[in-house]
Amino acid sequence: MKAGAAIEKTVDIHEMEDCLEKAIREITTTMFDCDSEIIPFESVDLIPPGLSAIVGFGGKISGNISVHLSPENACALASNMLGMKINEMDDIVADAMGEMVNMLAGGMKKYACRHEDLFRISVPSIVYGSDYSTHSPKDSERLLMGIKTGSSTYSLQLIFANG
Amino acid sequence: MKAGAAIEKTVDIHEMEDCLEKAIREITTTMFDCDSEIIPFESVDLIPPGLSAIVGFGGKISGNISVHLSPENACALASNMLGMKINEMDDIVADAMGEMVNMLAGGMKKYACRHEDLFRISVPSIVYGSDYSTHSPKDSERLLMGIKTGSSTYSLQLIFANG
Repeated sequence: MKAGAAIEKTVDIHEMEDCLEKAIREITTTMFDCDSEIIPFESVDLIPPGLSAIVGFGGKISGNISVHLSPENACALASNMLGMKINEMDDIVADAMGEMVNMLAGGMKKYACRHEDLFRISVPSIVYGSDYSTHSPKDSERLLMGIKTGSSTYSLQLIFANG
Repeated sequence: MKAGAAIEKTVDIHEMEDCLEKAIREITTTMFDCDSEIIPFESVDLIPPGLSAIVGFGGKISGNISVHLSPENACALASNMLGMKINEMDDIVADAMGEMVNMLAGGMKKYACRHEDLFRISVPSIVYGSDYSTHSPKDSERLLMGIKTGSSTYSLQLIFANG
């Protein structure tokens, strides 16, 4: 092989999943001072919908990471982060969950981009309300997982496109 | 100045606004075969909320672009794009509006990154429902504009952070 020749390699969604799982364990321990475990996606109760926090990423690979929480779990995690009791969804909860997904995306980048700068991350967008659903382009790959951090459960979705 | 020394320059939100306005005029003419004009943000009727399509970007500058439409305007623009009459919000409308904001972000990148690769864009996220609101981190700059494409009006938000 010629010196300096580029090695063309696509990134598998399961490699990203591994990086994301490492990031989840590391970030949630730091942020919430408790352990997290990956649980079946189906065991997360998202009815009623509550809050979704989304961070996009783009570069050699592009996609987005989103967390989806019920109002109760969003308030519980924000209360834990901020050290104050919050009972209702508001912009403070939205900011806290935006920061959480931002740190998860940053953690995934740290593990996924050790050898190559595969992507850059955007600022988070946060949606909350009592009646909404989220969608991604139909031609993208997707991975869904459930997470349990302390006694709070929520889902995480990774949307992923090579190139 | 030393040869090759980097010129540190932050990007102003108004430079991005110029790039985005050029992209809006170009993209909407191509996609919808009609002219677009920038209108006061306040004149766009978003009650009830309908659909929001968001594309993040990250790099030297990061942020996101989002369009927000009432159900009627989302269906009208999707009908125009696809050449078929659509009366209710569904995944087809969501995909069409995701494609629209994706093209707007790509157009903004074309104009903003002529001399330097300032950012990469993510895949779009689309939210729709009858009760939701969207938020961005409180420390980001934001710019709101109204757009009228043919007889449809909608709002566009640019969220922006240097560095």
